[in-house]
Amino acid sequence: MDSRILNEYDEVMIAGLPLKDAVEKIEWFHGSLAPGLLLGGFMVDVARELLPESVLYNAVVESPYCLPDAVQLFTPCTVGNSWLQLVDYGRFALTLYDKDTGVGVRVWADVSKMDAHPKIRDWFLKRAPKKELPLETLIPAILTAGRSIFSSKSVRVSETIGVGKKGNVRLCPNCGESYPEKHGALCRPCSSGGYYQETHGS
Amino acid sequence: MDSRILNEYDEVMIAGLPLKDAVEKIEWFHGSLAPGLLLGGFMVDVARELLPESVLYNAVVESPYCLPDAVQLFTPCTVGNSWLQLVDYGRFALTLYDKDTGVGVRVWADVSKMDAHPKIRDWFLKRAPKKELPLETLIPAILTAGRSIFSSKSVRVSETIGVGKKGNVRLCPNCGESYPEKHGALCRPCSSGGYYQETHGS
Repeated sequence: MDSRILNEYDEVMIAGLPLKDAVEKIEWFHGSLAPGLLLGGFMVDVARELLPESVLYNAVVESPYCLPDAVQLFTPCTVGNSWLQLVDYGRFALTLYDKDTGVGVRVWADVSKMDAHPKIRDWFLKRAPKKELPLETLIPAILTAGRSIFSSKSVRVSETIGVGKKGNVRLCPNCGESYPEKHGALCRPCSSGGYYQETHGS
Repeated sequence: MDSRILNEYDEVMIAGLPLKDAVEKIEWFHGSLAPGLLLGGFMVDVARELLPESVLYNAVVESPYCLPDAVQLFTPCTVGNSWLQLVDYGRFALTLYDKDTGVGVRVWADVSKMDAHPKIRDWFLKRAPKKELPLETLIPAILTAGRSIFSSKSVRVSETIGVGKKGNVRLCPNCGESYPEKHGALCRPCSSGGYYQETHGS
């Protein structure tokens, strides 16, 4: 991304960071300045400001693309600390909610608010080929739109979301590796097949 | 974590970083120095060194606890860029593999190698109450064991791993949000229920 483009938006803040610092973080973690990370950054800010300041919150994202990284970079919630959960709805939406009560805010990219930003809408709905909407076009459109293309609602998150406790651990009698006792008599790949085949030892 | 403990292990490197820098990164991203992040860092190093130097790789982790964050911090693979996939086996194992060929290395925490490190084994198999194995005891044990408690095997990863392409997008006739056409006539939460209930508008 040409830094002159970003210079024109140097008043934009994401998660309390000046745009350039936010972009640097995104490029380091995600590998590139994907548009979805900028949208996600704005969405985190929308949700965060609607929650009480001191609340300890968890997060849910509804798409595996881009959004998990925005939440992991711009909130304390990560996949590995279990404060971020993924649900595979394919919707560009996230929820931040009070860990104790489940009460929180869901924020989503709202196509009905994109009339003034047709480039974003065409990209978001995949109505234009990628080459017609290069980053040099799309990023300024997103920075101009800012938070105006999102909607939010208060929600209460169900208690069943989350990975829960691991519980007791045992060794699989087939492969010898440790796994959660609650999975059954064998570990899952030994009972149902895994994602890999062994080739040769090392 | 008392920095004097870490001082004693200042020759330890994780993902090319001196221990203190790796710990700083872990604490920033994960929120605390969890033992699983240190194990994960060593495991990434074991796998990475068994792959050709210039290979572009994807990753799979077999546990939702801790390991995803080690991979996200110490490799280019994240959940949001789709280079890291999660499978819910509850095994403390990860695979790095060539994006093009699927050929790679699986590394796991091997209980059969923990006889010389009973504190790690007792923690890993949950055989000791947490208060008997505080971080001040466990972290030095892990740093002393280093890579000696892991095993690895060459593997070929199945083509079915991964989230795949999103495909065409449409608006759900019920909620009006965009979702992947391949999910059907309605988006998933509208057809099968979601993880939240709306409370009041905002």
